[in-house]
Amino acid sequence: MSTFNSTTKPLNVKDQAKLAQKASKKLALLTEKEKNEALLVIADVLEKESDFILNENKKDLVNGEEKGFSDALMDRLRLTSARVKEFADGLREVVELQDPVGEILSGWTLDNGLKVEQVRVPLGVIGMIYEARPNVTVDATGLALKSGNAIVLKGGSNAIHSNSAIVSVIHKALADTKIPEDAVQFIASTDREAAGQLFTMKEHIDVLIPRGGGTLIQTVVENATVPVLETGVGNCHIYVDQFADVEKALEILENAKTDRPAVCNAAETFIFHEAWLEKNKDRVAALFDKHGIEVHGDENAGEILPDVIPATEKDWAEEYLSLAVAVKVIGSVEEAVAHIERYGTKHSEAVVTEDAETALTFLNAVDAAAVYHNASTRFTDGSALGFGAEIGISTQKLHARGPMGLPALTTIKYRMTGDGQIR
Amino acid sequence: MSTFNSTTKPLNVKDQAKLAQKASKKLALLTEKEKNEALLVIADVLEKESDFILNENKKDLVNGEEKGFSDALMDRLRLTSARVKEFADGLREVVELQDPVGEILSGWTLDNGLKVEQVRVPLGVIGMIYEARPNVTVDATGLALKSGNAIVLKGGSNAIHSNSAIVSVIHKALADTKIPEDAVQFIASTDREAAGQLFTMKEHIDVLIPRGGGTLIQTVVENATVPVLETGVGNCHIYVDQFADVEKALEILENAKTDRPAVCNAAETFIFHEAWLEKNKDRVAALFDKHGIEVHGDENAGEILPDVIPATEKDWAEEYLSLAVAVKVIGSVEEAVAHIERYGTKHSEAVVTEDAETALTFLNAVDAAAVYHNASTRFTDGSALGFGAEIGISTQKLHARGPMGLPALTTIKYRMTGDGQIR
Repeated sequence: MSTFNSTTKPLNVKDQAKLAQKASKKLALLTEKEKNEALLVIADVLEKESDFILNENKKDLVNGEEKGFSDALMDRLRLTSARVKEFADGLREVVELQDPVGEILSGWTLDNGLKVEQVRVPLGVIGMIYEARPNVTVDATGLALKSGNAIVLKGGSNAIHSNSAIVSVIHKALADTKIPEDAVQFIASTDREAAGQLFTMKEHIDVLIPRGGGTLIQTVVENATVPVLETGVGNCHIYVDQFADVEKALEILENAKTDRPAVCNAAETFIFHEAWLEKNKDRVAALFDKHGIEVHGDENAGEILPDVIPATEKDWAEEYLSLAVAVKVIGSVEEAVAHIERYGTKHSEAVVTEDAETALTFLNAVDAAAVYHNASTRFTDGSALGFGAEIGISTQKLHARGPMGLPALTTIKYRMTGDGQIR
Repeated sequence: MSTFNSTTKPLNVKDQAKLAQKASKKLALLTEKEKNEALLVIADVLEKESDFILNENKKDLVNGEEKGFSDALMDRLRLTSARVKEFADGLREVVELQDPVGEILSGWTLDNGLKVEQVRVPLGVIGMIYEARPNVTVDATGLALKSGNAIVLKGGSNAIHSNSAIVSVIHKALADTKIPEDAVQFIASTDREAAGQLFTMKEHIDVLIPRGGGTLIQTVVENATVPVLETGVGNCHIYVDQFADVEKALEILENAKTDRPAVCNAAETFIFHEAWLEKNKDRVAALFDKHGIEVHGDENAGEILPDVIPATEKDWAEEYLSLAVAVKVIGSVEEAVAHIERYGTKHSEAVVTEDAETALTFLNAVDAAAVYHNASTRFTDGSALGFGAEIGISTQKLHARGPMGLPALTTIKYRMTGDGQIR
């Protein structure tokens, strides 16, 4: 087993951001081939150093047990050799993705002969702030490097040993490639101040991407002067209209709620048209029963369905991320739209109906990254849509909306070529 | 002459933003024809009410004289019937622009039959924060409405009467159109707190666009949690390389500095390769002399050129926006790039050279919205590039970079149409 120098360099956050920025200038000029070769080296070295990573991961697990972490959190923290192999394979998939850098999005020549081209270029330096999932360290690094960006990683303190080990392996791997090691910076300090410093480092960091719970994301949005790409929180609704097909509705409800309850594109609230629910209440109750789904509902829901816990404001406003659901009973598509407008997080919203006009009203009026007619919200996902790996799902409107692939990590530059043109 | 109710409604900023948001939902669903008809009505009514607007404008001018405003500021404030006609004609030009809303950017069908479309939709509510130029009130409103967005206008206190009059005319005009009057909100309060409230109204405002000086823009960027589209500050450089053609170089320098010194795409610093400047110093000095250009330079510049004032840090870092220039003398393209990296505002940067390799190095290495080879920086402009009217020139990297036309005021929505698809 190899040994590594600690990645804890005697550098402050600003120095690290500066090093990343300097490295980003070189990285931006590399060819796709050079970047791909480097990613493949990282993948190989990660596999080769699996034991080292797993040993370091154990330290985080021991610490987690001492602190009494939940099973779910321990599961997100825990690495196995299979998971490390998945990291490596994830990088190999990124190699297969098309490099967006250098793509000429449009080009034209002005009457005076000045040639204008809109070219995709890397953003520069990405600041990634995330919680206890060591896979983000590898995934985000792979996508950043492939798109020609340097990255400054600030992971959660719970995964500090795992993340530190992964980055030291990445650094070791990069030593033999064209990508400068400095293009990947890991902030080893676990204090919150270190993350706070990233928030305002506008001169050296081009974008911040927070990944984790709502509190983390809000903290970044509220305190950052560096532009932020907001990701992830999905308080998603399925509206089952009066004219919904029963089989489609039940399948979509089941899939959106139970397939993977903890992900952001899972459904959190079912909105039923009263007439439809009255007619199909037994089958809906049976669905809840089959999966042991805890139901929180409004008064109408309580009158129609069994075992309904009265819903509070929190039930409408927050994600469960578990086998629980909020149930709202309404009388028109307009009421459904109004409820979503009030409580939705602009992620993914679906209507189930056979009535084309109702569907159109819903698709047009609901303001969200993805709006669905007669399908599960679970398709809001880079790989499901065919984008390959994603850096996150944007719930904001500027720059990128919905699943963000490599192009979301680029900007454009106008390249003007002339022969002495003046205005 | 008509009379109008004051636009100063007994509403606070939050109420106004909410009204705008409500109106934006209706506006988003209007057809291009309905929006165009409304814009043409506004144009006509503006012309018809020219006298009213000019009378109100006089109040601002009297106030400006009392306060001893500079000639330049008074000129920006002053309206004439010709200028009001320009406002109206500007709106008629916006009518001619293609409506971006509803454009399907891409569409595909997944293997399971789920139809995916990426559709352009309005951003929602635009918050416009600007200084003493009443034309922004009309221009920004026209672009916002055409792209289906509501707008909250916060103009400078110096133009309060003019802006208020313009908005009351717009409201009068909208009464006879499909666009709800509430889609245009004018914040009549002149205190800074009112603008401050807009900064954090994330729930009701989708984007803030500051237009004005660097201080205004920085204040918005530093204090806003609403996403900001940064515009405008252009500390632009022309690098004249060792292998620059003398005639091209002199024409480009002259055009970029003297054509319209006060605009953001005008040049502020000339960087000369020492060898080229030595050879052409007399012609450069003659150019400065011809236009009475004040020259601030480094030591080398002082040795080569006459009448050079020693440059301070401020000379390198800030825009003159007048017939003054900073002159830096260097020995390689790398030094030029490094100087621009340090002092540039990522707006427009040019290299003049006949050497293809030097040009490529410069175009690739300089990080700016627009990079030029052998042309004046003055082409970074929506109308020069053929986009029509622009909402501003973005100097940031996210969402929009360079001249921003109507598409910059839109976002996308994934519209998924299925037949019961689940994952």
